[in-house]
Amino acid sequence: MAPTIRRLQVAVSGLGRMGARHANHFLHRTPKAELVAAFSPEPREIEWAREHLEPWGVKLYTDYDEMLKHEGLEAVCVATATTVHAEQTIKAIEAHKHVLCEKPLSTKHDILRTPLIDHSQKVFDTARRYPDVKVMCGFSRRFDASYRNAYEITKKGDIGRPTILRSQTCDKYDPSGFFVAYAEFSGGIFVDCNIHDIDLALWFFSIDGNLPKVKSVVAFGVTALEPDLAKHGDVDNGVGVVEFFDGQIAYFYSSRMNAPGQHDMTEIIGTTGKLAVNSNPTTGLLESHRPDGIQRDIPQNYYERFEQAFVEEAREFTDAVLENKQLPIDLESSVEAVRIGVALQESLRSGKKIWFDREGKRVDQDGQAKARL
Amino acid sequence: MAPTIRRLQVAVSGLGRMGARHANHFLHRTPKAELVAAFSPEPREIEWAREHLEPWGVKLYTDYDEMLKHEGLEAVCVATATTVHAEQTIKAIEAHKHVLCEKPLSTKHDILRTPLIDHSQKVFDTARRYPDVKVMCGFSRRFDASYRNAYEITKKGDIGRPTILRSQTCDKYDPSGFFVAYAEFSGGIFVDCNIHDIDLALWFFSIDGNLPKVKSVVAFGVTALEPDLAKHGDVDNGVGVVEFFDGQIAYFYSSRMNAPGQHDMTEIIGTTGKLAVNSNPTTGLLESHRPDGIQRDIPQNYYERFEQAFVEEAREFTDAVLENKQLPIDLESSVEAVRIGVALQESLRSGKKIWFDREGKRVDQDGQAKARL
Amino acid sequence: MAPTIRRLQVAVSGLGRMGARHANHFLHRTPKAELVAAFSPEPREIEWAREHLEPWGVKLYTDYDEMLKHEGLEAVCVATATTVHAEQTIKAIEAHKHVLCEKPLSTKHDILRTPLIDHSQKVFDTARRYPDVKVMCGFSRRFDASYRNAYEITKKGDIGRPTILRSQTCDKYDPSGFFVAYAEFSGGIFVDCNIHDIDLALWFFSIDGNLPKVKSVVAFGVTALEPDLAKHGDVDNGVGVVEFFDGQIAYFYSSRMNAPGQHDMTEIIGTTGKLAVNSNPTTGLLESHRPDGIQRDIPQNYYERFEQAFVEEAREFTDAVLENKQLPIDLESSVEAVRIGVALQESLRSGKKIWFDREGKRVDQDGQAKARL
Amino acid sequence: MAPTIRRLQVAVSGLGRMGARHANHFLHRTPKAELVAAFSPEPREIEWAREHLEPWGVKLYTDYDEMLKHEGLEAVCVATATTVHAEQTIKAIEAHKHVLCEKPLSTKHDILRTPLIDHSQKVFDTARRYPDVKVMCGFSRRFDASYRNAYEITKKGDIGRPTILRSQTCDKYDPSGFFVAYAEFSGGIFVDCNIHDIDLALWFFSIDGNLPKVKSVVAFGVTALEPDLAKHGDVDNGVGVVEFFDGQIAYFYSSRMNAPGQHDMTEIIGTTGKLAVNSNPTTGLLESHRPDGIQRDIPQNYYERFEQAFVEEAREFTDAVLENKQLPIDLESSVEAVRIGVALQESLRSGKKIWFDREGKRVDQDGQAKARL
Repeated sequence: MAPTIRRLQVAVSGLGRMGARHANHFLHRTPKAELVAAFSPEPREIEWAREHLEPWGVKLYTDYDEMLKHEGLEAVCVATATTVHAEQTIKAIEAHKHVLCEKPLSTKHDILRTPLIDHSQKVFDTARRYPDVKVMCGFSRRFDASYRNAYEITKKGDIGRPTILRSQTCDKYDPSGFFVAYAEFSGGIFVDCNIHDIDLALWFFSIDGNLPKVKSVVAFGVTALEPDLAKHGDVDNGVGVVEFFDGQIAYFYSSRMNAPGQHDMTEIIGTTGKLAVNSNPTTGLLESHRPDGIQRDIPQNYYERFEQAFVEEAREFTDAVLENKQLPIDLESSVEAVRIGVALQESLRSGKKIWFDREGKRVDQDGQAKARL
Repeated sequence: MAPTIRRLQVAVSGLGRMGARHANHFLHRTPKAELVAAFSPEPREIEWAREHLEPWGVKLYTDYDEMLKHEGLEAVCVATATTVHAEQTIKAIEAHKHVLCEKPLSTKHDILRTPLIDHSQKVFDTARRYPDVKVMCGFSRRFDASYRNAYEITKKGDIGRPTILRSQTCDKYDPSGFFVAYAEFSGGIFVDCNIHDIDLALWFFSIDGNLPKVKSVVAFGVTALEPDLAKHGDVDNGVGVVEFFDGQIAYFYSSRMNAPGQHDMTEIIGTTGKLAVNSNPTTGLLESHRPDGIQRDIPQNYYERFEQAFVEEAREFTDAVLENKQLPIDLESSVEAVRIGVALQESLRSGKKIWFDREGKRVDQDGQAKARL
Repeated sequence: MAPTIRRLQVAVSGLGRMGARHANHFLHRTPKAELVAAFSPEPREIEWAREHLEPWGVKLYTDYDEMLKHEGLEAVCVATATTVHAEQTIKAIEAHKHVLCEKPLSTKHDILRTPLIDHSQKVFDTARRYPDVKVMCGFSRRFDASYRNAYEITKKGDIGRPTILRSQTCDKYDPSGFFVAYAEFSGGIFVDCNIHDIDLALWFFSIDGNLPKVKSVVAFGVTALEPDLAKHGDVDNGVGVVEFFDGQIAYFYSSRMNAPGQHDMTEIIGTTGKLAVNSNPTTGLLESHRPDGIQRDIPQNYYERFEQAFVEEAREFTDAVLENKQLPIDLESSVEAVRIGVALQESLRSGKKIWFDREGKRVDQDGQAKARL
Repeated sequence: MAPTIRRLQVAVSGLGRMGARHANHFLHRTPKAELVAAFSPEPREIEWAREHLEPWGVKLYTDYDEMLKHEGLEAVCVATATTVHAEQTIKAIEAHKHVLCEKPLSTKHDILRTPLIDHSQKVFDTARRYPDVKVMCGFSRRFDASYRNAYEITKKGDIGRPTILRSQTCDKYDPSGFFVAYAEFSGGIFVDCNIHDIDLALWFFSIDGNLPKVKSVVAFGVTALEPDLAKHGDVDNGVGVVEFFDGQIAYFYSSRMNAPGQHDMTEIIGTTGKLAVNSNPTTGLLESHRPDGIQRDIPQNYYERFEQAFVEEAREFTDAVLENKQLPIDLESSVEAVRIGVALQESLRSGKKIWFDREGKRVDQDGQAKARL
C-alpha cells in the first residue's frame, strides 16, 4: 500500500561529525521528515554519504547553492563549520527554506571592538524579513528529557522564583591537541561550550515570558594543560558570572580536561527548591563493585549524553514546520546567548568586568555609556 | 531518488499495549524493516491501526491466517495474549515466516501434573523442523544497554566466575484490580514477572557456552494487597531460589506493590567482583531538592524502563534475518526459562522444594525419579 | 572540683578485636560508664591492655571468675570467643552483674540433632531467674542511625505493613584463609553473618509488639573461593529464606567474597512503601572522578561501617542499667535469632526445607511433629 | 586504680550553641583533655552549665579574665560571639594559654577603607610574640574525614595539579528572620559562610607548601527572600570568584535558602582528575521508596554535617599541645582567609572587581597601587 502521510522534505548541509548525525536523525529517526538532499564540500564526507545516504534515496550535492534549488526542498539543517553557520542560514532563509541551525549562530557579536559584520544579528534581521520562514538555533539541551522535566517543574512554580543558575560544560580531555586547533575558529570556550549554559540561563530566567536583561559579566580562565590555547586568546578552564537586572545570577564553568568524560550539569535554584540536572553523570544503570571500590562510567562526549535530545530536536522542528506551530526556541534568545558568550570571552581576555544598561548598551561601572565595542 | 535498500517485510500480530508498540518500532524505528501488515481480532485495536498504521501503508487484517498469506511477508512479530503465543508462532513457522515472539513462549510446561499439551516444547520442536526459519523469544532485557554492558564485562572475566545472581521484577501497584484479572491467564508471578530474571540467570550462567542445569527450586509468596490472587494460585509478592548444579545460585523477588514505580534490578556476583544493574532506578538525570529532602522519580512501568531495549530487539531481529546471522537469544534457553518459571510456580503452590537431576528429570529429595508431573 | 556524677562500673571480658574496641568505647566514649576492669586469658591481649587500659586506671585480670569479684563491679561486657559467650554470660548473671554480650549468644540450638546443651536457651532461662539483672545481646545494627531511622518511619506506619525483608551481610574477601579457620567455631555463615539479618527481620516484623512465628526455612550455599569450608559444613556464599506465619517473608544473602569491602544492606518492604538501608555503601562523602570513571570507596569491615552503632550500644546499655529502664533489645528475640540461624545452617547442610508449627515445634511438610532435632 | 595519664586542662569561653558543643566535646569526647573551666556572661548559658557541666567537676565563670587565672589551666577554646574572638584570643595568648578559636578570627580586615583596628592581623602578631603558645582557628572542614581523604589523594598527586576549586556553603532557610538579625554582626555572607570555602581553597592550593597569592576577587549577590539583609550590606545568595596568581581559580556559592537543609560541598579539580566532596548530601544511609518517588533526608544544619569533625578538631588540638607538635592549621592561612572574605564582601557591596599584586597590596586594574582600603 502507498503511504498517504505528508513528510517534510529536508536537506542537511555539512556531513562532518554532527552533520552526519543530523542526516541519520532525519533519515531514520524522524518519521514525519524525509531526507532528500545533503551537501558537503568535503570529498571524504561525500564518500561517506555515498555509502550511508545515497542508497536511501538521498541526493548529494557539493555546491550549497545548488542544493537549495533541490526540487520540493522545504527545510535545511545547517551543520557545517561554525564560521559559515550565519551565511548559510541567511541564504536558506532567502530561498524560503525553513532552517534548523547548529549552535552557535556565529562566534562574533557587536561587543567586539572591531568593525566586523555582526553575524548573529544579521541572521535575526533576515529571519524577521521572512516571517513565514521558521528559523531555529539547535540548543540540544532544551530537548533533553531531564532538562524538560526541570523546566516543567519550574514552570509549575514548585521551586519558587528561579534565582541562581549554575551550569557547566566539561569535555573529556583530548590529548591530541584537537582543542588548540579547534580554538582558532570556535570563538573561545565561553562561546563554544558555555553557550549552552547561557542558553539555559536565558530559558529558565525567562520562565515568566520575558528575556532577562544582563547587567554585568565577568570571566576568568586558565590554561592548565594546553598553554597554546593562549595563542587564540582561549583557555582550557573558564569560570564566568552573569548578573541580570531584577535579582538573578548565573554562573558557569567550562573545562577541556574532565578526566572521566563529558560532564554537563545544571542547577536551577529557586526561592523554595532546587533542581539538579546530571549532578551524577552516568552512562547507564550499571555500577561495578570492584576490588578498588564502586565504579561507574560516564558518557565520553556530548553526543553520548544528548543523542536522544538531538533526535527530539529534529522531530519537533519537523512538527513545528509541518503544523505551522511556534518553534520551541526563540531566535532572539539565541542571538542574546551569542552576545553574552562573546562578552564573557572579552572579559576573560581583558580581565575586566563588563557592564550593560537595561537596554543592553554597554556602560562603564558608573553606568555611563561606552563606545560601541 | 528511489531507495535501493532491501528492507525486511514484517507483520505484527496483536495490537494491544505491546503489539502497538512493536508496530511502531518496526514502522518508524527499525530502518531496515518495513511494516507491511498487522493483525488484530479486536475492533478497538483495528480502529487504532486505521489512524496510526494504515496511513503509512500498512495493510490491516482481522484474520491471522489471512495475514500470513500477505504477499512478500517475511517475518511476524507475535504480540497477542500469552495464551496464543505458541499457536501463532507455530503457524508462522509452518508458513515459513521468521518469528519474534513476545515472552513467555507459553505459561505451561511439562512440570505440571496434567496431560496438557506442552506448548513451549512444541514451539521448539516445530522450529527444529524448519532450520531456515529464525525464531526468537523477545526477552527485552537482553537488549538493554546496561545489561549488555554487564554481560560484556562478565564475558571479559572482570568479575571472575558468575556465582550468585540476584534479580527482581517489581511493578508499581495498580489499585484497579488489574493484577487479579490478569492472573487468570498470566501463568502466575514467577512465569509472568520473574521469567525475565530467570532468563538473565540462564544468560549470565551460560557465559562459557553451556546452559546451566537446574538442581532444585523453591518458592514462597504472600498476598499482601490482593487476597483475590489466591483464587488463581497466585501472589503479589514472590521470593524464589534456583540452585544449579556446578555451584551457582539465582534468587529472585517479584512484586506487584512497588510504591514509586517499576524497579527491575539485577546483581551478577562473581568470584572477583559484582555488577549491579539498576540498583538506583531513576527516570532520568533530575533530582529535586525540596523542603522534605532530595527526591527523584522512577519509571512507572516496564516500557518506560525498557523502551530502547525493545527498539534494539526489533533492529537486531531484523538484522539477523536479513543477514542470516545467529539470533541473539537461543530458543532452547527460552524454553528452559518457562520450565523453571513453572516449577517455581508449582513450588509456591505446594510449599515444597522441587529437585531435578542433571538430565532435567524431576526427582525426589533423595534423587529418585518421580512420576512426570 | 570533684565530679558528682554516678558512673556505671563496667568490666570487659575478652580483649581481642571486638573486646578491645568495647573496652575503648566504655573507657572513652561512654561518659556515664567507667571501665574499671578487663579480663583476657591471652598474654598478647594483656600486653595490649597494659599499654592502653591500665594507665587509665583499669584493673587487668587473667581469671574471669576473679574479675567478677572486682569490688563495685556492676556490669560486664562479654566479648570473648563465641564458644564461651553463653558460659560467661551465665556466670555474670549469677554474680548479679548486668551483661552486654556480643552476638550470637551461642552457635548451638535445639534444632541440632545432637544431645548438646542448648546454650542460648540456658542463658535465657538463667536471666529469667534473675529479673533484676539486665542482659542484652549486642546486635549492633539496632543502634545504627540509619536502621533506627528506618524503624521509626516503619513504626509511624509510613510504609504500611512490613511484609518482605531482604537483608545481606557481605564481607570483603580475605585471601589469607582466615574464613576457613574461623568456620570451625563460628557456627556457620548463617549463624555468624546472617544472624544480624535475622535479628532485623525479627525486629521489623515485631513492630506491632509480637515476635513473628517462623513457618519454614530453607537455605542454599556454594563454596566459590574457599572449598575447604566444606570441611566445617560451611559455605562462602549463602542464600536463605525464612517464611513466617501471617504473611511475611525474609530472605537473606551472605558472602565472604565481596570485592570492594563490607556491604551489609537491608530493604524493608511494606504494603505502601519500601525503606532501603545502605543500598549504596560508601566510606564517606567523597567521589573520585578518574580517567576510568567515577569511583568511591566502601568500608573495609563491619567496624568501619558500624563503629558509631557500637558506641551507641554501650551508651544505651549503660543508661538502661543506671536508670533501670527497659533494654533496647529483648533477650527472647536474640534466642530466637540463634534458633533460626541454626535452622538455616541445617537446611544448608541437608538440602531440605524445614517446617515449624505455630508453637515453634519442628514438623514435617504435612505439619506432623518430628522428633527433636 | 588511679589513672596515670596526663590530660590537657582546658576551658571553654562562651556557652552558646557552639560553645556548649565544644564544652561537651572536651568533656566527654576528647580522652586526653579535661574540661576544667567554662565562661559565659549569659545567665541562661550559666544555668545550662550548672546542669550539664558542673556535675562533671567543671568550674563556671562569669568573668573571662578570672577564668584565665584558673589554676592549672593550659588552654582555652574561644567560642563566643565573633565580635570578641580576636580580643579573647589575644588575652589568652598573653596569659600563656594555648587557644583554639572558632572561625572567623574576626570580621574585619585592612581591606576596609576605615581606620578600624585590623583584628585578625593583631591576633597573628600577638601569636608571633609568643612562639610557645599554640593558636589555631577552628576550620572544622579540615577535620572532616571526607575532606581529609580528598586532601590525601590530592597530596599523592592522583588528580594532578589542583587548578579549579568550587565550593559552596548553603544553609537551610530559616523563616524566623534569624539571618537578618545575625547579619548585623556576622561580617556578611562571604565572611560568615564562604570563609570555610576560602579556607579550603587556601588548603588545597597550598598543597605544595606555599600559600597561593590572590590576584583578584569579584562577588555578586541577591536578596531573594530577605530584602532586609540589604540594611547590613548583605545578601542571602552570594557568588564569588577568587583568582590566584599562578593559574588557579576558586569559585564560591553561599545561600541562606537551601530548601532541604545544609548542603556544603566542594570540588577539587586537578589536571588529571576531580574529587567531589558531598555532591550528594545525605543524613545517613537510608532511602525511602515512596509513592511520589525515591527520597532521602539531608542534614538540617552544619553541626549535623560536621559533628565528628568538631570532635576530631578538639582531639587534634589537644594532641598537638600535649605533644608539642605542629598544629594542623596554620594561623597565617586563617588570617588570609579573613582578608579574602572581607575583599569579596567589599566587591559585593561596590560591584567592583578588586585586584592585588603578588605582595598582597591592593592595586587598580592596571596594576597601580591603590590607597589602603
